[in-house]
Amino acid sequence: MERIRMVFSGSGGQGVITAAIIIAEAAVLHENLVAVQSQSYGAEARGGATRSDVLISDTEINFPKVTYPNLLVCLTQEAYNKFSPIIRPGGFLITDTKYVTTHKKVAARQRELPMYQTVMDQIGKPVVFNICMLGAVIGMLEIVKPESIMKVIETRIPAGLIDLNRKALELGIKLGEPFKG
Amino acid sequence: MERIRMVFSGSGGQGVITAAIIIAEAAVLHENLVAVQSQSYGAEARGGATRSDVLISDTEINFPKVTYPNLLVCLTQEAYNKFSPIIRPGGFLITDTKYVTTHKKVAARQRELPMYQTVMDQIGKPVVFNICMLGAVIGMLEIVKPESIMKVIETRIPAGLIDLNRKALELGIKLGEPFKG
Repeated sequence: MERIRMVFSGSGGQGVITAAIIIAEAAVLHENLVAVQSQSYGAEARGGATRSDVLISDTEINFPKVTYPNLLVCLTQEAYNKFSPIIRPGGFLITDTKYVTTHKKVAARQRELPMYQTVMDQIGKPVVFNICMLGAVIGMLEIVKPESIMKVIETRIPAGLIDLNRKALELGIKLGEPFKG
Repeated sequence: MERIRMVFSGSGGQGVITAAIIIAEAAVLHENLVAVQSQSYGAEARGGATRSDVLISDTEINFPKVTYPNLLVCLTQEAYNKFSPIIRPGGFLITDTKYVTTHKKVAARQRELPMYQTVMDQIGKPVVFNICMLGAVIGMLEIVKPESIMKVIETRIPAGLIDLNRKALELGIKLGEPFKG
């Protein structure tokens, strides 16, 4: 397995840290992989751009921060402006069409997906936006199986919300799959 | 400010990761400090001992993992058995009296606190056990102010649960304060 270096970025309320923890736990608890997940908060965190790093591998990980991600998700314009320069050449850069207008030339596979709009149209609850984003990520990169994600989600939320989350995950997978790489 | 190296450990459902994220955000967003918060999941995560690392400093942090914590919290016996050997000599080792029987000789200030029992007796809701633990931590070490913790909590939970969390934080502070170091 190639080592997957991911950065999820956006604003505080969008659930990027939760999404990062879910995919890390899915990889470790249900797919026999190793993962490190971290938040580095510096002065920029006070400006509002939240950043959450995940490394997934099948061998030990020594240094837990991601320098050049091969998958970068930006859910706000500020996050895009700040973090798009760090994408690894040839990597995947996923943005949300509602929140981000892409303008920079980056040497990456830039994918603009209507994640927020799809969640609002099909489900109507913004709270599962981050789960839709996770779906797009695994639809594109097949890092972990959807069932592994769902097993982690099921331990974290009340039973009545599981179907909502599964639907959001599936919608995201459909958005990501056409760009599978 | 001395650099604070913390490890919170316990089982999956005890909220140690959430507690770690809350104290890191409190330090960064409300006290002008820098923080790094991480989860390293290896094979041992599948055994059930969750570990969450937090580094807080007033200067840049390069390596985000904690090797020898000067504050280690263990909320289960398994976490205690596994992680107590890594405490920095002279550091604080906080355990919960309900979940952990201490048996090892460690060169640390070992504090056994009835956090879970106090939460159940005074509040009756185990869900704020992790917030009581955070209170004990800041009561003992004054890393961040209680108001900074509350400001972060207030952005994360429904308004109706804020008083419950404040009470748990205050109970924890009372448990930690006699051991202030």
